[in-house]
Amino acid sequence: MTDVSTTKRSLDPAVNAMLDLAKEKQIDTVWDRYDAMLPQCGFGDTGLCCRHCLQGPCRIDPLGNGPKTGICGATADVMVARGLDRAIAAGTAAHSGHARHLAHTLLKMAEGKANDYRITDEAKLKSVAIRMGIAVDGRAAMDVAADLARAALADFHEKDTPVMWAATVVTKKRVALLSRLGLVPKGIDHEVSEIMHRTLYGVDADPVNLLLAGLRCGVADLAGCYMGTDLADILFGTPKPVQSAANLGTLKKDWVNIALHGHNPVLSDLLVTTAMKRQDLAKTKGAQGFNLVGICCTGNEVMSRHGIPACTHSVSQETAILTGAVDMMVVDYQCIMPSIATVAQCTGTPVLTTMDICKISGTDHMAFTEEQALAHAEEILKRAADRFEKRKGKSVTIPAVKTPVMAGFSTEAIVGALLKVDARDPLKPVVDNIKAGNIRGICLYAGCNNVKVQQDKNFVAMAKKMLKENVLILATGCGAGALMRHGFMDPAKVDELCGDGLKAVLTAIGQANGLNGPLPPVLHMGSCVDNSRAVALAVAVADYLGVDTDALPVVASAAEAVSEKAVSIGAYAVAAGLPTHVGVMLPVLGGPLVASVLTDKVKDLTGGYFIVDLDPESAADKLIAAIDQRRKGLGL
Amino acid sequence: MTDVSTTKRSLDPAVNAMLDLAKEKQIDTVWDRYDAMLPQCGFGDTGLCCRHCLQGPCRIDPLGNGPKTGICGATADVMVARGLDRAIAAGTAAHSGHARHLAHTLLKMAEGKANDYRITDEAKLKSVAIRMGIAVDGRAAMDVAADLARAALADFHEKDTPVMWAATVVTKKRVALLSRLGLVPKGIDHEVSEIMHRTLYGVDADPVNLLLAGLRCGVADLAGCYMGTDLADILFGTPKPVQSAANLGTLKKDWVNIALHGHNPVLSDLLVTTAMKRQDLAKTKGAQGFNLVGICCTGNEVMSRHGIPACTHSVSQETAILTGAVDMMVVDYQCIMPSIATVAQCTGTPVLTTMDICKISGTDHMAFTEEQALAHAEEILKRAADRFEKRKGKSVTIPAVKTPVMAGFSTEAIVGALLKVDARDPLKPVVDNIKAGNIRGICLYAGCNNVKVQQDKNFVAMAKKMLKENVLILATGCGAGALMRHGFMDPAKVDELCGDGLKAVLTAIGQANGLNGPLPPVLHMGSCVDNSRAVALAVAVADYLGVDTDALPVVASAAEAVSEKAVSIGAYAVAAGLPTHVGVMLPVLGGPLVASVLTDKVKDLTGGYFIVDLDPESAADKLIAAIDQRRKGLGL
Repeated sequence: MTDVSTTKRSLDPAVNAMLDLAKEKQIDTVWDRYDAMLPQCGFGDTGLCCRHCLQGPCRIDPLGNGPKTGICGATADVMVARGLDRAIAAGTAAHSGHARHLAHTLLKMAEGKANDYRITDEAKLKSVAIRMGIAVDGRAAMDVAADLARAALADFHEKDTPVMWAATVVTKKRVALLSRLGLVPKGIDHEVSEIMHRTLYGVDADPVNLLLAGLRCGVADLAGCYMGTDLADILFGTPKPVQSAANLGTLKKDWVNIALHGHNPVLSDLLVTTAMKRQDLAKTKGAQGFNLVGICCTGNEVMSRHGIPACTHSVSQETAILTGAVDMMVVDYQCIMPSIATVAQCTGTPVLTTMDICKISGTDHMAFTEEQALAHAEEILKRAADRFEKRKGKSVTIPAVKTPVMAGFSTEAIVGALLKVDARDPLKPVVDNIKAGNIRGICLYAGCNNVKVQQDKNFVAMAKKMLKENVLILATGCGAGALMRHGFMDPAKVDELCGDGLKAVLTAIGQANGLNGPLPPVLHMGSCVDNSRAVALAVAVADYLGVDTDALPVVASAAEAVSEKAVSIGAYAVAAGLPTHVGVMLPVLGGPLVASVLTDKVKDLTGGYFIVDLDPESAADKLIAAIDQRRKGLGL
Repeated sequence: MTDVSTTKRSLDPAVNAMLDLAKEKQIDTVWDRYDAMLPQCGFGDTGLCCRHCLQGPCRIDPLGNGPKTGICGATADVMVARGLDRAIAAGTAAHSGHARHLAHTLLKMAEGKANDYRITDEAKLKSVAIRMGIAVDGRAAMDVAADLARAALADFHEKDTPVMWAATVVTKKRVALLSRLGLVPKGIDHEVSEIMHRTLYGVDADPVNLLLAGLRCGVADLAGCYMGTDLADILFGTPKPVQSAANLGTLKKDWVNIALHGHNPVLSDLLVTTAMKRQDLAKTKGAQGFNLVGICCTGNEVMSRHGIPACTHSVSQETAILTGAVDMMVVDYQCIMPSIATVAQCTGTPVLTTMDICKISGTDHMAFTEEQALAHAEEILKRAADRFEKRKGKSVTIPAVKTPVMAGFSTEAIVGALLKVDARDPLKPVVDNIKAGNIRGICLYAGCNNVKVQQDKNFVAMAKKMLKENVLILATGCGAGALMRHGFMDPAKVDELCGDGLKAVLTAIGQANGLNGPLPPVLHMGSCVDNSRAVALAVAVADYLGVDTDALPVVASAAEAVSEKAVSIGAYAVAAGLPTHVGVMLPVLGGPLVASVLTDKVKDLTGGYFIVDLDPESAADKLIAAIDQRRKGLGL
């Protein structure tokens, strides 16, 4: 395990090495910009700042001095709840925008307009279609795909049914509960738009009403995430366990290094498969070949499906460019710091934006279309190879830090592995081990790295503690990124990291699957939309036990959250009934009623609740206590 | 005209009188809360504050000290453009949420589920249906209505066509231009959601790309507004010239005073028609009858269709309650200050919220449904009458301030009046008078009262100046509210207010219509969704002249804007090619590129642009100069 002083920016030695280089070269990074921003605004920090109309900006002093309401009379709780709702709406819009992009791709493919795509996992197409009530028997896969894509697009708006990607993916009990509470979304975009309406000046001024709407929008976010996972699996394959590696040491001096950054596999998956076939394009420029590496969730997508290594994640994205070894950073959307343009100018690294909704001043843009996908992919490879030719022979700084990673643990992959243990009743081994206490509970680590936290510190501290306590850990997004860079996805670390019960389980499953060793300590479930996979697993276990998800010893944590997407994911985790930890301050402290609803009273509605705790040790204790309470509830 | 010292809060003597009373009674109003908020945050004021992720809040010092970017690297322009886009998205969500509500009501009615509603204007149903490509010949009106409602609901999402309520309501040239620029929306909610996605942390970081998306969302807002107008006219009737009155003097001591506040006619129109029939409910409680009065745009809706007087508007909404004479304030949504709950507690006035998306802590809520509309309306009337019984005989403070108003100038009403001048060619008199200079140009006053401006000051100063310069003035929303309370909708004021050319035109039209006098100086076109009526008029004139709307001597002004709806309306005015004045500071000053695009460079794209000027005299000069420039362009 890594051990660095807390005075370092990151727990990751590769990142710290690059930051030393940045300092030497006088290139500012996110940490410098964070320092320059201190002290941050206390009004905004506590949610007590509002700019929802032109009479503002309004601020309520969190210390109780000065105005107690905004100019319109909005109380602190109203202000805080409105702000939180807009964050949930933004997160929902982003995940579902990603899913819609996949739905369009699937539809174009099915209609013969995007012939560079294919149905990679027909079994998944069939199972998702059946879940959606689409006929599959005797039908051509392409016809089913077209219907499924249309059903996906229909989920964005009001129709005769609620959002099907929400209503069919949780337990029947949960659907009934959410219906009773009015928390089943009518349409994904509909909920986003309604949030924007009700948070307008002079609309909703009841904090609880606002928070319930936020939860409903959170359920719409679950739909967007789940749809994103389903459609990506159909188009690009459902992940299976795969060997890979992580950290900046995955960059290779003599190769054409292309960093794939963002979230969506529509372009990146094709870049990977095309690069495999067209190594000649690199070789003719004097390179050993193409070396594609991932950043953030685009990285998770291509790692899970192709074993593409991840060079870094989230807050440290600039360090990839600082190596000078990246010949092109290709980005799609979400979590792409605009600063990469500035850092890339210093190093001469080309950054290519590819999606209409995400341009960055100071970078090149290629208007990617699914219709011309392969041609665009080849063009990108050629451009990167050209850039390599110019870089060739020049000095680069690649830290020799690389950890082995076993990734690809989709729900299907986990069930597949369990089938090798019990071919008739695959969930039985998990449930038996939960009952026996070998698996004390399950924790999902999701979310980002936040510059306010020493990078990876919360993830590492919490995972260490919880693994020793025999908590089975799933991870997604840059939470997975953090843990992979610190060895938590290396099967060889099971002995060191896991408690005896968990070790026995991981080893038994690994051996039954002919791995000649255990599964890794932490199971990488994919990108942040793939939090849906954790929901799927929890729902399967709940159904198996005949209980609802809020009865399970399952918890979630976004230990270093950044994006509004993390807020919307948190909202659906709570709506699904999970105790949900956030390891950075949410801007809700200024609203005492809001804070109390989110961390306590919502329990009476959904069974879930937020735990906001910035101390990873104490946060882990709280999650373990929550797990134990649920075990008790189940009579365990 | 009113003449008050600038030290007074309002130009409206009734409002000032009530504020004196509030002071005496130590009841805080919006002006007190504004004072308490000073100085307002300079970061927020200039748009240089961002809370779109949990690494923030970030602030860029508008004076150039400290950080030049956010922590993620977002520049000042990116920050400002993202903030502006979210405001446009919120405004669009609100107007279209209102329109969707009407579409659902229309559909429920057509399906026999909401039998308290009917098709009041079948001719408008037919004309709108034809515009939407819906068959009408030989079909039952209810069937056409059902199809139209479904077409309206379909406009919220992506489908084979773009948003039809956008693509069919502007000139053909404008559609072609907007298509070339990529500014035709795919679906109203789709655009709102896409804005929320692209303004997320790490997505769009190109200010111009962000602003273009904002303009497209603005065009979606036009669709929402236009749809709102069309469907309200079909359900409740297209306004015709009607006599009414404005200001607090419309409240009556011995009557059951019900103030209708918000924006939507779905409940309020029914309350009006029911109150007319059920005066007995008031009389049995010892009242003379029901006296319904309007506030904000709900007021404009019922004034335009039924001549219901408006008691006050926008920033002075609390003063209605301060009179002690309001027996119930019934609110739907938008622009309802949460503070009314507090003020109403001081006076013992019941405030009733009626819509699920707009509850206010400390008030009663009735969950209104269209299915039970009449029953709900009667229940509200009964409750108000009961409250009157308790108030009866107690002292109230109703300022004796009341101005005559002629309202109801829908586009159809204007064309109808012109038909009396030229039965074969109704637009000819307007166009001839524009050519002759009797009408120098047309200005639309829209938007709110902002606490930062002495109430009504900008509207009154600008309208005075422009009327003298023979500019034909249309008004909507609380812009209309401001002008009506100062006599600008009183035909008797034409002599005093209008230049000779305009006077002649208004008089000729009035006389041709048997009014025994002129039309009023300012034509009240309706509520803020009814800015669509001004668009319809401009498009009709442009089509008549064979030019696009950006060639017309037509300008717009939101002289005292507050709501994010005003920002989205501004965006569509600019997209339609109009010079568009805003009389309060938009939070864009911190982004020099954004400010320059909005006030200048966008001209090269759409022909429209923003004029931000806080001085009404100079703003009026600029609008007149813009009118003259356009006249020159037309060779006039």
